[in-house]
Amino acid sequence: MQENIIPHSFNVSKENRTKIKNHNSFLMWFTGLSGSGKSTIANAVEQTLFNKGVHTYTLDGDNVRKGINKDLTFSPEDRKENIRRIGEVANLFVDSGLVVLAAFVSPYKKDREIIKNTVKDVNFVEIFIDTSVEECERRDVKGLYAKARKGLIKDFTGINAPYEAPENPDVRIDTTQTSVEEAVEIILKKIKPKLYL
Amino acid sequence: MQENIIPHSFNVSKENRTKIKNHNSFLMWFTGLSGSGKSTIANAVEQTLFNKGVHTYTLDGDNVRKGINKDLTFSPEDRKENIRRIGEVANLFVDSGLVVLAAFVSPYKKDREIIKNTVKDVNFVEIFIDTSVEECERRDVKGLYAKARKGLIKDFTGINAPYEAPENPDVRIDTTQTSVEEAVEIILKKIKPKLYL
Repeated sequence: MQENIIPHSFNVSKENRTKIKNHNSFLMWFTGLSGSGKSTIANAVEQTLFNKGVHTYTLDGDNVRKGINKDLTFSPEDRKENIRRIGEVANLFVDSGLVVLAAFVSPYKKDREIIKNTVKDVNFVEIFIDTSVEECERRDVKGLYAKARKGLIKDFTGINAPYEAPENPDVRIDTTQTSVEEAVEIILKKIKPKLYL
Repeated sequence: MQENIIPHSFNVSKENRTKIKNHNSFLMWFTGLSGSGKSTIANAVEQTLFNKGVHTYTLDGDNVRKGINKDLTFSPEDRKENIRRIGEVANLFVDSGLVVLAAFVSPYKKDREIIKNTVKDVNFVEIFIDTSVEECERRDVKGLYAKARKGLIKDFTGINAPYEAPENPDVRIDTTQTSVEEAVEIILKKIKPKLYL
């Protein structure tokens, strides 16, 4: 059904937008267990970038699941569609010239691959917030692990669903050894060559 | 299935982003028949805004139908989902601080209402590119009207599907009376108070 869509050549390109912003755009993908510290670290990175005049946007369960993906359940096929749409939205934001931060458990390698392929390898920075399930469960900030243990949440990653850790993430943060401030420093150092081309 | 999503309070807000950009964000919705001149005028508006240092992004059939909405057909229910998702994506972009231009035929009033409700009334500028079906068919830049007349395209707006014209658009452009340059001027004058608050 795509045959009647004829592309327009828009005047303002990604390159133009990058030029007026003085920084490049890409996606920082934060993966890790629920309660691992993904959002906390992503927030701190975003705040630091903002202070440097970098235009950022954060995609997370809150603004995605309640909006574009509110029609989706947590069934395997809807989870797959959830990831696909997040990749496509992130891709539009990268195209718009923003530095995108996305914080999602994203337990499956193949799903993270889909995201990487959608935004393209060069625009993808995988950040593994490596906090063990024991530590996440000990913290249990949102009380979700307790609920999962009681069987109140089906397919809870780390308890009764697998987490496939990234083998070669661009950045790995062990939150039991690294403070939020240190994590921000490590991540900023890593992205600096990508940010200013 | 939404009960386990607990909102995070992100540090960088829309207000913060607006402040560093020195302009406000909102959605300019271009509606009109296929070939009416929506994309041409939207492009020209975008180029002009870019030259003024305004950070814009354009959503249209090209980047939406081939990405986030590539799973959708042109059935009535998929068209509805198409519009819903465009509204949600536009809403994220408005939240990110960008001036969003969207060029879609969007023939139904209730669909345009959905978009307006999603991004909120205050962030919605409806621009009606009012070119008659006779004139669009005469131009037939993409040869789609000829195809539709031959019955090769089902439900083609203006030929065998209705177009519900906006009753009170924020801007109405009659392209038989108004040049692209004049249209840009009219539109910029209209959005100026919204752009710089």
